[in-house]
Amino acid sequence: MFTECVPNSITSLATADIRFPTSASLDGSDAMNRDPDYSAAYVVLGTDASDGLEGHALAFTIGRGNDVQVAAIEALRGHIVGRDIEELLDDMGATWRLLVHDSQLRWLGPEKGVMHMAIGAVINALWDLKAKRAALPLWQLLARMTPEELADLVDYRYLSDALTRDEAVALLETTAAGRAEREAIILREGYPAYTTTPGWLGYSDEKLARLCREAIADGYPQIKLKVGANLADDVRRMRIARQVCGPDFPIAIDANQRWDVATAIEWIGVLSEFRPAWVEEPTSPDDVLGHAAIARAVAPIPVATGEHAQNRVIVKQFLQAGGLQVLQIDAARVGGVNENIAHLLLAAKFGVRVCPHAGGVGLCEAVQHLSMFDFVAVSGTMEDRLIEFVDHLHEHFVVPTVVAGGRYLAPTAPGAGMEMHAASIESYRHPVPVPA
Amino acid sequence: MFTECVPNSITSLATADIRFPTSASLDGSDAMNRDPDYSAAYVVLGTDASDGLEGHALAFTIGRGNDVQVAAIEALRGHIVGRDIEELLDDMGATWRLLVHDSQLRWLGPEKGVMHMAIGAVINALWDLKAKRAALPLWQLLARMTPEELADLVDYRYLSDALTRDEAVALLETTAAGRAEREAIILREGYPAYTTTPGWLGYSDEKLARLCREAIADGYPQIKLKVGANLADDVRRMRIARQVCGPDFPIAIDANQRWDVATAIEWIGVLSEFRPAWVEEPTSPDDVLGHAAIARAVAPIPVATGEHAQNRVIVKQFLQAGGLQVLQIDAARVGGVNENIAHLLLAAKFGVRVCPHAGGVGLCEAVQHLSMFDFVAVSGTMEDRLIEFVDHLHEHFVVPTVVAGGRYLAPTAPGAGMEMHAASIESYRHPVPVPA
Repeated sequence: MFTECVPNSITSLATADIRFPTSASLDGSDAMNRDPDYSAAYVVLGTDASDGLEGHALAFTIGRGNDVQVAAIEALRGHIVGRDIEELLDDMGATWRLLVHDSQLRWLGPEKGVMHMAIGAVINALWDLKAKRAALPLWQLLARMTPEELADLVDYRYLSDALTRDEAVALLETTAAGRAEREAIILREGYPAYTTTPGWLGYSDEKLARLCREAIADGYPQIKLKVGANLADDVRRMRIARQVCGPDFPIAIDANQRWDVATAIEWIGVLSEFRPAWVEEPTSPDDVLGHAAIARAVAPIPVATGEHAQNRVIVKQFLQAGGLQVLQIDAARVGGVNENIAHLLLAAKFGVRVCPHAGGVGLCEAVQHLSMFDFVAVSGTMEDRLIEFVDHLHEHFVVPTVVAGGRYLAPTAPGAGMEMHAASIESYRHPVPVPA
Repeated sequence: MFTECVPNSITSLATADIRFPTSASLDGSDAMNRDPDYSAAYVVLGTDASDGLEGHALAFTIGRGNDVQVAAIEALRGHIVGRDIEELLDDMGATWRLLVHDSQLRWLGPEKGVMHMAIGAVINALWDLKAKRAALPLWQLLARMTPEELADLVDYRYLSDALTRDEAVALLETTAAGRAEREAIILREGYPAYTTTPGWLGYSDEKLARLCREAIADGYPQIKLKVGANLADDVRRMRIARQVCGPDFPIAIDANQRWDVATAIEWIGVLSEFRPAWVEEPTSPDDVLGHAAIARAVAPIPVATGEHAQNRVIVKQFLQAGGLQVLQIDAARVGGVNENIAHLLLAAKFGVRVCPHAGGVGLCEAVQHLSMFDFVAVSGTMEDRLIEFVDHLHEHFVVPTVVAGGRYLAPTAPGAGMEMHAASIESYRHPVPVPA
């Protein structure tokens, strides 16, 4: 017995400020984000283990401020580097609390914005490492954990009025029996996708119509259009999309936080003629009560939000207040996989469907694992559920998303999905700002 | 006419990472913040104007992560440096929107956490510069603006279901008549303060009793005790404070976000025996509905919160839902003076009293301006209103807070109050972290 052997530990945390010049083409343009440069605050965790495996993840931003996001990840080095690998990975619930409840760092949120997204990136890098060490894709790693192990990943602080650990375990036990069967279904059939590609505001009417036709030909069961900049334009574009897609094809609309409550109700009222499949981000992502008022007014059109929901406390309230009917989790907005599992459990508890936000850089690659895990081990259903898909920047990823016939095909390579090619990291590394 | 003259412009944005080793003495210890090192992400705006005046402000943190906060302020350099001074200062409403609605930076929030606090620091530095150029203390500068000018400082996006510009103007007009009289009152009598000095968790019972006696002898009309770590300790400490202060002296309690909803109701139920003046931050600062549930259960004990309220959208909802009965604005948490004016107007609209959070580094120096302005030009009353006071680190400020007889004396020196002595900045500058 080698009592003096040094345990395997995390030996490095490396970051990169990666920016893609997407604003040049107006891909990704909407009513609030006119000129995004899709960017990644990238993190790599290295270890001294003989397997040579690394944990990769990123926080997604849209350009300016990506350096701040990188600085926030750097601020976590002291919490991670030098720690025992197994100790961190074997109790990811404790690891989450170690980072999120740091008594000084939490002042910068608490649990929101730059610092929380940085914690999410580090947590996701650890999940990537854990999945690689298990030689499993993340969705499968999670789907094979017991209800108790899964429940222990969640921090119930501030949640217990809506969800307790006991309730989480009971909920996970109801779908435990059919896991193997559903795992086989995912591997065989994948998970439904919808595409936002036709609907960016910067595109011409001709391009919109062409992309609508292509989306249907490609087998997508739903598309989404950006709205909210100009009502007459929205009416014209919705009419085009409705004509091209037919009267019953699901077309969601996304206002990207553009409206106040009264404006939202009025604007959606006009667009209701085109029977949108849902209306997304009608107002501030912080406005639980505002969303609830909008949802009541525009019913039966469902309200969708979540890509900017800062943490589980906000998601809890959205569900309590009826502020959303479609929960759009995001892989890089909150405190990583652990907090997204809390969101999946809350949604299951409240009987709300989850249709993740994706696109950006690496968000498709990451969030598909969460939806597939949800199907296998949490909600047990894919009914009325789809993952957003934008066919963009996937070539930079080691395990790129594969969508075929309007469905995400299950990734089978080990890891959590956000690892980028070394060449991409180097090619799109942002120049270090020169101090004034 | 010199048509080619270069307008006066902002020529520099300088930052400093300043940290005070306060954790050594357990000053500032509470149930969530066990070992704070009070810190400032400090910013100085320089100009090429012949007056040589600078704008100073800071974002307050409690240690780790102060470098991230500094990086966020640095990220705003391109928005400010090179701009015309008058253009920025003459329309501070537009300047606020310029920073807050940057289409790329807002992804990092939106309007919350590190990036929003950085914007607040830069906005407050501009207000400092504006007040110095007017040779007035900030409170007086604001109190002499017209209702229309004040209303134009506020961004009504996401507020209009609770407060419109017209309502803000009307509200400000109701107190416009008595402004001169109230300005004289403030200059003569100051503004009531309460002290948190006796109540830190790290102090012994003997120190608690002694500091309670001293607070009363010093003329404070209220004290506050930290609670939430251990119920038996809280009961013992409240009993000591009640015995020393007498049966009717107002003693507020502060749980610093420690509890879940059910725990809060139970714990406050036990402490209700000691008739707390208010219960502060019983749970997550994001949990509007949780606070509302607690407020209903513990009434008539008022619920106080706001020091971690991330923006006006959250404050709006707290008021709409009855989640707070005492609004504790903070000078360095949100988007600066402009957003705090939104909070003062919302509180006035909902008839809720404002008792600012202070302490930390420079928070007393800054927030007193907002309360004094509120008395002169917004609510028109000091009834049941007090500003928190902690006698700590004031010696580092050029215009230190002066509290006498339990009241903040009105600052008369020009500026917004957060300028530190150059020697203090240099002495407490944090070493630049060495990259790994």
